[in-house]
Amino acid sequence: MDRYEQVTELARRRGYMWPAFELYGGAAGFYDYGPLGARLKRRIEDTWRSFFVVREGFSEIDCPTIGVEEIFKASGHLSGFSDPLTECKECKEIYRADHLIKHIIEVPDALSDQEIYRVIQDNDVGCPECGGRLSEVYEFNLMFRTAIGPGNKYPGYLRPETAQGMFINFQRLLRYHRDALPFGAVQIGRSYRNEISPRQGVIRLREFTQAEAEVFIDPRDKTHPRFCEVEELILTLYSRQGQEMGQTERMTIGEAVDKGIIAHQMLAYYVARTYQFLRAAGVAEDRLRFRQHKADEMAHYAADCWDAEVLLDRLGWIEVVGVADRTDYDLRSHMAQSQANLKVFVNYKQPERRRVVRIKPDMKALGPRFKGQAKAVAQALQAMDPADLKESGESVTVHVDGQKLFIEANLIAVEEVEEEVRGEEIVPHVIEPSFGIDRIIYSVLEHAYREEMVDEESRIVLGLLPGIAPVDVAVLPLMDREELTGPACQIVDEFRRMGMIVDYDTSGSIGRRYRRNDEVGTPFCVTVDYETLEEGTVTIRDRDSMKQIRVGVQALGETISALIGKRMTLDEASAALSQGS
Amino acid sequence: MDRYEQVTELARRRGYMWPAFELYGGAAGFYDYGPLGARLKRRIEDTWRSFFVVREGFSEIDCPTIGVEEIFKASGHLSGFSDPLTECKECKEIYRADHLIKHIIEVPDALSDQEIYRVIQDNDVGCPECGGRLSEVYEFNLMFRTAIGPGNKYPGYLRPETAQGMFINFQRLLRYHRDALPFGAVQIGRSYRNEISPRQGVIRLREFTQAEAEVFIDPRDKTHPRFCEVEELILTLYSRQGQEMGQTERMTIGEAVDKGIIAHQMLAYYVARTYQFLRAAGVAEDRLRFRQHKADEMAHYAADCWDAEVLLDRLGWIEVVGVADRTDYDLRSHMAQSQANLKVFVNYKQPERRRVVRIKPDMKALGPRFKGQAKAVAQALQAMDPADLKESGESVTVHVDGQKLFIEANLIAVEEVEEEVRGEEIVPHVIEPSFGIDRIIYSVLEHAYREEMVDEESRIVLGLLPGIAPVDVAVLPLMDREELTGPACQIVDEFRRMGMIVDYDTSGSIGRRYRRNDEVGTPFCVTVDYETLEEGTVTIRDRDSMKQIRVGVQALGETISALIGKRMTLDEASAALSQGS
Repeated sequence: MDRYEQVTELARRRGYMWPAFELYGGAAGFYDYGPLGARLKRRIEDTWRSFFVVREGFSEIDCPTIGVEEIFKASGHLSGFSDPLTECKECKEIYRADHLIKHIIEVPDALSDQEIYRVIQDNDVGCPECGGRLSEVYEFNLMFRTAIGPGNKYPGYLRPETAQGMFINFQRLLRYHRDALPFGAVQIGRSYRNEISPRQGVIRLREFTQAEAEVFIDPRDKTHPRFCEVEELILTLYSRQGQEMGQTERMTIGEAVDKGIIAHQMLAYYVARTYQFLRAAGVAEDRLRFRQHKADEMAHYAADCWDAEVLLDRLGWIEVVGVADRTDYDLRSHMAQSQANLKVFVNYKQPERRRVVRIKPDMKALGPRFKGQAKAVAQALQAMDPADLKESGESVTVHVDGQKLFIEANLIAVEEVEEEVRGEEIVPHVIEPSFGIDRIIYSVLEHAYREEMVDEESRIVLGLLPGIAPVDVAVLPLMDREELTGPACQIVDEFRRMGMIVDYDTSGSIGRRYRRNDEVGTPFCVTVDYETLEEGTVTIRDRDSMKQIRVGVQALGETISALIGKRMTLDEASAALSQGS
Repeated sequence: MDRYEQVTELARRRGYMWPAFELYGGAAGFYDYGPLGARLKRRIEDTWRSFFVVREGFSEIDCPTIGVEEIFKASGHLSGFSDPLTECKECKEIYRADHLIKHIIEVPDALSDQEIYRVIQDNDVGCPECGGRLSEVYEFNLMFRTAIGPGNKYPGYLRPETAQGMFINFQRLLRYHRDALPFGAVQIGRSYRNEISPRQGVIRLREFTQAEAEVFIDPRDKTHPRFCEVEELILTLYSRQGQEMGQTERMTIGEAVDKGIIAHQMLAYYVARTYQFLRAAGVAEDRLRFRQHKADEMAHYAADCWDAEVLLDRLGWIEVVGVADRTDYDLRSHMAQSQANLKVFVNYKQPERRRVVRIKPDMKALGPRFKGQAKAVAQALQAMDPADLKESGESVTVHVDGQKLFIEANLIAVEEVEEEVRGEEIVPHVIEPSFGIDRIIYSVLEHAYREEMVDEESRIVLGLLPGIAPVDVAVLPLMDREELTGPACQIVDEFRRMGMIVDYDTSGSIGRRYRRNDEVGTPFCVTVDYETLEEGTVTIRDRDSMKQIRVGVQALGETISALIGKRMTLDEASAALSQGS
């Protein structure tokens, strides 16, 4: 068994996660989170929130997972979010066409469907199952499609990313933020990709959880006011240049910006926060790097993009987060699709005086002639481009209330005036840190997993960080007898009142119960024994060091809470007790 | 404007919620939660978790929203979860057929599709839009359908409830709970119903959020060990009998069980917890009742069912929670569909000695005759019903390894023996409290909304409970000047470090900012003014009473935290300060 098998086996057996629909034979690309996994997931999401919602002050929103067609026309998913397929003409099995020619063409992604099909024909590539002939290559859209309401008039699509929710709500979000940039909006929720034949467990799912932030900024200023908080942080970077030489570099975030390796502070700041979040979730320092997208793998509109990559035992380096400067692409696409104005009026620091060309209609002449329509005529004239007006000859045509009106050129003056300009309309740029929660969960599990020899027996430990581990503390009566289970249950109740997640377990020897808790990652066990009845003390046993200390029942809740919150070490807790007694 | 309009208008304007896809003209039945709404939603969900996950110790799981067909064959949704439709033959508009005959037939739900169509024909009911002729009535399944993978071989359905995730994972959940009943599993997540033409905002959505608990119990014992904790609670009950007389009754939970009004303690216990949760979320006591399902509205398998209903201004009493005893229906359905054994072996308290009839093959004769097959033959004989054996005459037929074997009756004895029976296999019953989160959110908003006259001006207040309100505290520098914004931002940072959600606002007069915070429901405002610089104190202003007290900056974090956690009243905070200074 490699590490991947060990971790997925443990995850399945202990209630972290398992393939969904097992009762009915399963379906690739769908996973259930069990009692421990769902709690681990929630704790990782809450840690993410403490970074990006509480500390950054971003606004979390919650949009439907079904979307209407226009959204995905604008985003490009309807036309571009697809894989090339081919079908065996004999056994009807369907394949990713580009995968079938990987041994022939190194980068099949660059080929068109026709080109892939030609490679298949020229090389006599047949069905891997039955050897049958393969069909022409066609594109399969990876969005799950459904219909809203009866009939097929209104197609709906399960969102392939949460990001679009922030873009299509830009106007409301801007108003909520009192019309001022920068601001950020985030969403944590399900996204869907109808993969052809997903494998690799939770690493490639058809339904998965994303946490995405869209930070809307003024494109003329890509510095970050709190950059000083992160600039000293040292990260492992795998830059575009580094990739050519196959070398990563350790350097500070500040240095990376100064040297022009990361495009600007704004991007670097979120790379740094991403690093801090991943470490807080439990990703190992030495199995984490940030890889820059190469020019040819980046979306054409993106200015710079860095992936957080995590090293896994079987799968190698996999992407778990992308941090991209998406420029104004998304908002411009939705402006074009919706015809709405998604620009922001940004004040200059100082109003500027500028000479501008203005059209000035002669209202004394237009007033009597057009009466009630005069104002509308003047507005129509002012809306024209002064350059066009100059070339229009003797008269100018305007359309007012569906009428075509001719205005003599001599009734219209073109003046150059000096005006005070307070600011201008801009389309914000977007910095997007996008997190794949399921991959992070798996990485945290694999990085936490270790086997060690204790007293010539192998011990499996899930070294999850306290506060991230799904169970805070286990309460174990030494024996399943009422005189011990009674006080133990009181301790359980007290812990629960304090908001802690407690496991209560009376089954099997105490040693076996310690091992079981090591395996699920419970950082602390509290054992209630006969000394508890006599002395009013219990044992606290530390998962990692296996050290045990005795603590008075009165101080227990506070002590465990301080240990989990890392406000106290086990030695300090032990010392505090001796002093107290 | 009625209350519904006032609340939805405020919700839209202030960032609580609004119809989704506005940028593209919207789609009925889909809502976005904005920054305040998403946080209110999360806080209500977390309150639910504190009741049902932390305190009850139920296991939260997290399953895909897409499900495979077998699940919904077993659950009955594939065949039974539909509405009758009819289409106008002229304008092609589609209608709920039963809705079109409501003015003719009082309870059209009871009619078959053919019967509805006959009523339409007999009464010349035409298209409400164009008067055109209507098509025959057909059933439209309310599940959103999609396809898993390319082609249409594997249909997938968006789940119409989260409950099925707990049922199909029953075996894994049972193992996680060390094979012992009772245990509970919960899920909070999206569910989907493809309504024909939903109206009523978030009350009837096509995509909504449920929080459901499935409590698996031993059917022979429907008492609850902690019933004493809730039996004194007084609830407004609208029982089956009460509905006949149009009367609700106030009584204790204990009395309701004693009188046989609520079927048993197990159901009553969760009705009580539901009441406590709804009150903790902010549903008004006098606009909350529990209504029992009438015999004809309850599912045929259910033993008893109570809805929590909330009174809304425009919509009347609406269901927000259902608490049902679903008996063994769900597990039996999945057993039949999957052929898996979803029974639980339950130990008797004392092993029982019982006289049982056993078949005893004569191994001395069978051994030499069947050699290697002898054991299989014996097992096949023992698996037979002793009653059948008695009637089988001179020889018995068994099938072993595909062979048909004849065994003489005199080689088989039928004995009555006394055996120790440790327990038996049972199919658990399920108690299901099922919560509609969106409806609860809307109810909480409407019940919190009030307008009052203050100094001859109308003031709108959202009286959300502290801890439920999406913003904990607003920090307001009296003026937008650096000497005030500097210390104000420090306070914001401190609050955020303490995990509080803070709004920082410098725009407009202080009075206007107080009103704005009243309107979004922020329970406390902290104002930083010139006294702050001189005396080191700030003003805390209470939303409900509009009282203001001054507090030293050092004690501020603790004071606000205590006020939100209701560990201190405003008067106590004020008194504490005077003592301290």
